[in-house]
Amino acid sequence: MNDQPQQGRRPGTLIIIGGGEDRDPKGRRAILKEVARRVNGGKLVLATIASHKPEGYFADYEKAFADLSIGEIVELYVEDRREADDPDKLKMLEGAAAVFFSGGDQLRITSQIGDSKIEARVREIYEGGGLIAGTSAGASMMSETMLVSGSSAVTHRVGDLHMAPGMDLVRGVIIDQHFAERGRFGRLIGAVAHNPRVIGMGIDEDTAAVVEEGKLRVIGSGAVYIVDGSDVSYCNLTEARTDRVLSMHDVRVHVLGTGDRFDLAERRPTPAKDEL
Amino acid sequence: MNDQPQQGRRPGTLIIIGGGEDRDPKGRRAILKEVARRVNGGKLVLATIASHKPEGYFADYEKAFADLSIGEIVELYVEDRREADDPDKLKMLEGAAAVFFSGGDQLRITSQIGDSKIEARVREIYEGGGLIAGTSAGASMMSETMLVSGSSAVTHRVGDLHMAPGMDLVRGVIIDQHFAERGRFGRLIGAVAHNPRVIGMGIDEDTAAVVEEGKLRVIGSGAVYIVDGSDVSYCNLTEARTDRVLSMHDVRVHVLGTGDRFDLAERRPTPAKDEL
Repeated sequence: MNDQPQQGRRPGTLIIIGGGEDRDPKGRRAILKEVARRVNGGKLVLATIASHKPEGYFADYEKAFADLSIGEIVELYVEDRREADDPDKLKMLEGAAAVFFSGGDQLRITSQIGDSKIEARVREIYEGGGLIAGTSAGASMMSETMLVSGSSAVTHRVGDLHMAPGMDLVRGVIIDQHFAERGRFGRLIGAVAHNPRVIGMGIDEDTAAVVEEGKLRVIGSGAVYIVDGSDVSYCNLTEARTDRVLSMHDVRVHVLGTGDRFDLAERRPTPAKDEL
Repeated sequence: MNDQPQQGRRPGTLIIIGGGEDRDPKGRRAILKEVARRVNGGKLVLATIASHKPEGYFADYEKAFADLSIGEIVELYVEDRREADDPDKLKMLEGAAAVFFSGGDQLRITSQIGDSKIEARVREIYEGGGLIAGTSAGASMMSETMLVSGSSAVTHRVGDLHMAPGMDLVRGVIIDQHFAERGRFGRLIGAVAHNPRVIGMGIDEDTAAVVEEGKLRVIGSGAVYIVDGSDVSYCNLTEARTDRVLSMHDVRVHVLGTGDRFDLAERRPTPAKDEL
């Protein structure tokens, strides 16, 4: 592993998971297998930082990864922000091929390790060609501005969303998870309405977007929804009282299933079949 | 009321409600007030046909409409299909300015009164310039092909939807209700995927699409989502196994709030503010 960010070298891979990925040792485990394939016998750091009570997560993932040829799997937890610069904690990231952020509260990740040595080390792993994976809260935190909360299963009301600076591992994207399961279409559209420069990416449970070189590919059993606001002809975001329902016309949506790809810069999807 | 459909005369109005409309006698009741305004002191027939047990519906609506200057309000229920041609039942529709279909099971409406004298009379009221309103199941049944069931809160899987012939009061549209509340975006996209000739119309609770002369206007506290598949560049509907998740690229979506309009033939929205 390199201690300095390597400019000009191709960054690594993100696996952005919508939560609820199959972890049953007898199940398909499509997403964990993809993680393991990329760890390729190396070291996986399971970061349970998003959780207020991390107990159980590590044992669960250790069991799920047991037969998937991970060389070494260690748990990284920080109780409070002081620990985020702790040399012993930093040592856990040494030689890691991948860091996997489990679920919980995305604000716990950013408030505990934002601008810390652990964060710098995670970024180095990514920029050195490593893998950063995250599920649920661990997915949301990857964007530059992240979704923190907002009503699910209701049409977005202006002023209803809570956003915050994320870890900025992927640019120009805002991520939502448990997407179809919690009826979050309204809130993702609401987030994109604030600034159509960002693409909305809604990820179903047991589904992931594998991001490499500015392109994503879908794996898992659900869909990744892309909300592209670049053609929006009308939006009432600033005109409305905060309890008014959002209007937004001419939103482009892509529903991407397994194997489908999406070019984040070009904002264009490619069907799975064209990749065969 | 006229006994014959009147060709060439402007048809009436549909008020298509996403369920859960405010019925609190002390509440805003935006939708019921719109119904009452159009009944304009005339006779309103409350059709509780969608319900297997209609008890309670009528009393509830009677209370909600009590101070809204409805001239007369009567309940129309049919226990079984034989009753759908019963002269006493038909008499209830005599002189009606409006028929309001309450919620329940849309298949109960179509299977009990489809191709009956009651249906013919309802259509005559509509074609004579009257109002047909419907909430929840009473909304779904209005389209030519209607959505009967399909998983909510999950991305559509090919083969997962149950559709059936509807009452065909509005052409080229397929309607879903309780839309944001039950996370039904995936299933409405799935319905449109079958034939992008139809526009998907997803209506939130306490929200309605008022359809007149081929245009709709939104009233109520939520949104009407329009799913327009006419630009879809890729869809895997026929290629996939029935348990595979749907892929659909380049879907156009409009989120319409109160006062927004949509031209069903042109497939174009107009913001509320342009109407002021």
